[in-house]
Amino acid sequence: RGQVLRVIDPDGEQVSDVVAFASENTSERLSSGRSIDYNNTVYLTTGHVLYSNRSNPMFTILEDRVGKHDFLLTPCSPETFRILYEDHEGYHPNCFENLARNLERFSIADDDIPTTFNVFMNVDISPSGELHIGPPLSRPGDFVDLRAEMGLIIGVTACSAEKSNNHSFKPIDLEVRG
Amino acid sequence: RGQVLRVIDPDGEQVSDVVAFASENTSERLSSGRSIDYNNTVYLTTGHVLYSNRSNPMFTILEDRVGKHDFLLTPCSPETFRILYEDHEGYHPNCFENLARNLERFSIADDDIPTTFNVFMNVDISPSGELHIGPPLSRPGDFVDLRAEMGLIIGVTACSAEKSNNHSFKPIDLEVRG
Repeated sequence: RGQVLRVIDPDGEQVSDVVAFASENTSERLSSGRSIDYNNTVYLTTGHVLYSNRSNPMFTILEDRVGKHDFLLTPCSPETFRILYEDHEGYHPNCFENLARNLERFSIADDDIPTTFNVFMNVDISPSGELHIGPPLSRPGDFVDLRAEMGLIIGVTACSAEKSNNHSFKPIDLEVRG
Repeated sequence: RGQVLRVIDPDGEQVSDVVAFASENTSERLSSGRSIDYNNTVYLTTGHVLYSNRSNPMFTILEDRVGKHDFLLTPCSPETFRILYEDHEGYHPNCFENLARNLERFSIADDDIPTTFNVFMNVDISPSGELHIGPPLSRPGDFVDLRAEMGLIIGVTACSAEKSNNHSFKPIDLEVRG
């Protein structure tokens, strides 16, 4: 609590899926629905608060060098590539497995990984409701600073979905301060 | 599985929050994120499929007499009225408690009630991402038919949030056939 997580896009145009659980009770987890509801917007940026399923603040966005992130879509998974990538066959690396495999040590079940905060993901919504995924607006070195408002277990992964990253996979860097 | 749930608005302009869990394993639950992702729209209507957190089909929308529903916002809760309704004091009936109290008998924990499919809820999204909640477009007798694509435990409640129901609370009716 009080520490700041900086999620950095060192090369630009790379999405990072972020998820969080209360360290005291991992049944309390990030909630896109509560966050969108209480901020009254689908685009969270500087000054907005990300809430848990218990309606408690988990993060405050202290600084945002990009200003466009997604909080609607789930982490890409084996099913994402089966359902949405018609030309794909075989195994594909994915955010969901990256998160699930690394959160397992904290006794967090796959089923309990919610919609992630998809940092740098650039999704527009047409008036009809249709989604349009564009290249991230992040340039090399851009970052978002998230202050923890409670003790947290945080999962962060660089995204491996072609459509979200302008068809090129780059690293994501992290810093924790405070 | 195969049965059809009809959610009916007998008087018009009334929202109903709907949630579902797999009857064989209640860790599998409705996922707004997966549903929005795989349908590539925030507005689900006739022909769309509602997915679980395991990316399995839970419902198909067979018929929709209204065409405008919300799948972004969480069921209204005690915290909704504390955070979003500044002029409200004291206890307020709410969807979350209605669902939680009645799902408890199936060993479904409060923490595991996800973003609901908010039938008849009329939410517009401005290009900036801001949400605008309008009166439901449903007229008396309008309905939505949802076909169960697996064995399901379903929670349905009439919504008691003023902003969502044009400041007037009405009943919601149900029918199950097949």
